[in-house]
Amino acid sequence: MTGRPSRRQLFGYAGAAAAGAAVTGGAIALGNDSATRSSTAGDSAADGGTRGNVGPYGDHQPAIAATSPRHAELVAFKLLGGTDKAALGRLMRLWTSDIVALTAGRPAPGDTAPELAIPGVALTATVGFGPRVFTLTGLTDRAPRGFIDVPPMSHDRLQPTWTGGDLLVLVGADDAVSVVHAIGRLVADAAPFAKPLWRQTGFWNSTGPDGKPITGRNLFNQVDGTGNPAPGTPDFNSTVWNDDGSTTLVVRRIKLNLETWDELTRSEQERAVGRKLSNGAPLTGTAEHDELDLEARDGDNRLVIAKNAHARLSHHSENDGRRIFRKGLNYVQDTGATRETGLIFLSYQANLVSQFIPLLTRLDAADALNEWTTTIGSAAFAIPPGFHEGGWLGQDILN
Amino acid sequence: MTGRPSRRQLFGYAGAAAAGAAVTGGAIALGNDSATRSSTAGDSAADGGTRGNVGPYGDHQPAIAATSPRHAELVAFKLLGGTDKAALGRLMRLWTSDIVALTAGRPAPGDTAPELAIPGVALTATVGFGPRVFTLTGLTDRAPRGFIDVPPMSHDRLQPTWTGGDLLVLVGADDAVSVVHAIGRLVADAAPFAKPLWRQTGFWNSTGPDGKPITGRNLFNQVDGTGNPAPGTPDFNSTVWNDDGSTTLVVRRIKLNLETWDELTRSEQERAVGRKLSNGAPLTGTAEHDELDLEARDGDNRLVIAKNAHARLSHHSENDGRRIFRKGLNYVQDTGATRETGLIFLSYQANLVSQFIPLLTRLDAADALNEWTTTIGSAAFAIPPGFHEGGWLGQDILN
Repeated sequence: MTGRPSRRQLFGYAGAAAAGAAVTGGAIALGNDSATRSSTAGDSAADGGTRGNVGPYGDHQPAIAATSPRHAELVAFKLLGGTDKAALGRLMRLWTSDIVALTAGRPAPGDTAPELAIPGVALTATVGFGPRVFTLTGLTDRAPRGFIDVPPMSHDRLQPTWTGGDLLVLVGADDAVSVVHAIGRLVADAAPFAKPLWRQTGFWNSTGPDGKPITGRNLFNQVDGTGNPAPGTPDFNSTVWNDDGSTTLVVRRIKLNLETWDELTRSEQERAVGRKLSNGAPLTGTAEHDELDLEARDGDNRLVIAKNAHARLSHHSENDGRRIFRKGLNYVQDTGATRETGLIFLSYQANLVSQFIPLLTRLDAADALNEWTTTIGSAAFAIPPGFHEGGWLGQDILN
Repeated sequence: MTGRPSRRQLFGYAGAAAAGAAVTGGAIALGNDSATRSSTAGDSAADGGTRGNVGPYGDHQPAIAATSPRHAELVAFKLLGGTDKAALGRLMRLWTSDIVALTAGRPAPGDTAPELAIPGVALTATVGFGPRVFTLTGLTDRAPRGFIDVPPMSHDRLQPTWTGGDLLVLVGADDAVSVVHAIGRLVADAAPFAKPLWRQTGFWNSTGPDGKPITGRNLFNQVDGTGNPAPGTPDFNSTVWNDDGSTTLVVRRIKLNLETWDELTRSEQERAVGRKLSNGAPLTGTAEHDELDLEARDGDNRLVIAKNAHARLSHHSENDGRRIFRKGLNYVQDTGATRETGLIFLSYQANLVSQFIPLLTRLDAADALNEWTTTIGSAAFAIPPGFHEGGWLGQDILN
């Protein structure tokens, strides 16, 4: 065996790739990428079953407001001892260059498997910084307002395997092979700076049988995400974005006990959620996006949406108007004869302390769903703004 | 908590489902299923990103010759002590009914999450019998000719977690949630008869960026499956099917060491395989399906396709004409900070002893790829013929 091939060698090979990649001369010029600029992030699945490319540029990291991908992998990293502010900046420049290439379906610089970079799979990569980044010299005043780690909740049963992290990358795409490939590149390029602490893979279906977008369901068969503010609306913008374009992300690995959940009747299941399983409508309504009537009572004078129903406790009108933007990923983990099933819960909010923690605390205290769910992992990341051509991820923080 | 809801209750709910399911009166009549009959197993991804439904009927179990699904889960079971030939027949009738419903995108009888049954995701289910089934009273002479367990190979490092099994179900679909849902139903219905021994999930991409079918790549970036006989050809039929419509399936879990593989140059990687990474063409050709020239030598008088190249050793001309039909599934298993990556290798052949084992033995002895691959699981199943309307899985064997 010889050593790792040089970049020059690999670009030579990449030039011969059948993947239709745009690598020709041996250099990928960051910010000079016509394929990326001309691509659009359509939401339909009309184009050969895919959604085209999602451009890497923007005021915000683009995946957050985009439709959930069919597949995703999250990798949290622990920074190596020598990784200071300057080193983190070098890694971010490297990752930016990787992301510009990979989202266009081109191999990243130094890619050892260039043919696995394919266009048209709506690949995105979102990067975040864990709490420890903001203890590094020169960065102690750079965290978004209200960014702290999530305190353990009384129902949490956190495992170190799925908890914490100094750095996050979340890659999504409509093709699982593309996700594995992109994550492989980003992890390889991070090696001098940070090493993986945990990895989680998940999946979601946000396309209905007619090809139209749907909210999607978790493995409890609940329509999951109905209460979200709609991307692009003023509600969404004030919920998610800070003035500088940053946000925060909480990742919680929630084990769902399908066996005991399946023992309930459907009306018991619906009562725990406060919504209909059929289409996600509140128990007081008929269509998915009908407003909840939190005062309505049935013939026995009982609240239709119960006091401890998940939809009531998490509703913004019961939380001083506080909202979050949540995106779920289902997961299945094979462990020999049994498998663990659950939800990788992703919550985006401008201010973690004022928006997310009060809501989580409230749900921890009373949510009916707590009986069938156990949070086994938790991590919080500051998500820097997006970047534009010629810029790089986190440059306002790390410069 | 009350007990499990009755089937009647559940069908009532299912009738209200938004999933467009065809359940209306409360009964699913096996073999009287117009939705299934009218569906087709198209290979294009044109219809809203999906391939429609795959009908459950046929002389052969339909998934085998169909395009690989994007997602799949395999569950191997251990039969419970009391499961004799008659009990196995009852389970097969139950599974047949489940499969007729699920492949049409309808909830199975007793489904506790009926909305997760959706059409248009090309869902298939393939069922097999492990060696121990043919030790049961009344079944000792019913195994396909040449059906034995695969003997351990010198390079095998088999783990009990991924090895053996008395019964197999392999569910594939273009949507991961649908796979999890269908597997859940089949495992639940099997509970009185058999319990899961291992579960494996995998994924594959057999659609190119232009929406056209492609062979697909494993996580070593190799085009994987080029040497297969093409479904529908005489070669395929003689390779795969026994006269009664049965076949056999070998499932091997092969760990791929991506780290050491990535340390090779591309020419080293291509020499180990005997094919080009760019498009899967043999090193002596230019297009993927070019015939191998096993005699060709380079300027230094070395064989272009090396003596120990995987493509040479597995080629039928070097194996007395013996062929197999292989379908791979990539897998990634999260294990905290690291992940295991590999290939769930599926090989279909009419006769396991005469077709598969000589080939495997040859590869075990000399395949260049052995340096970067480790087989950690192995199982063999007899795959009964398909069924037609009014029939059921395995009826010729179990009746």
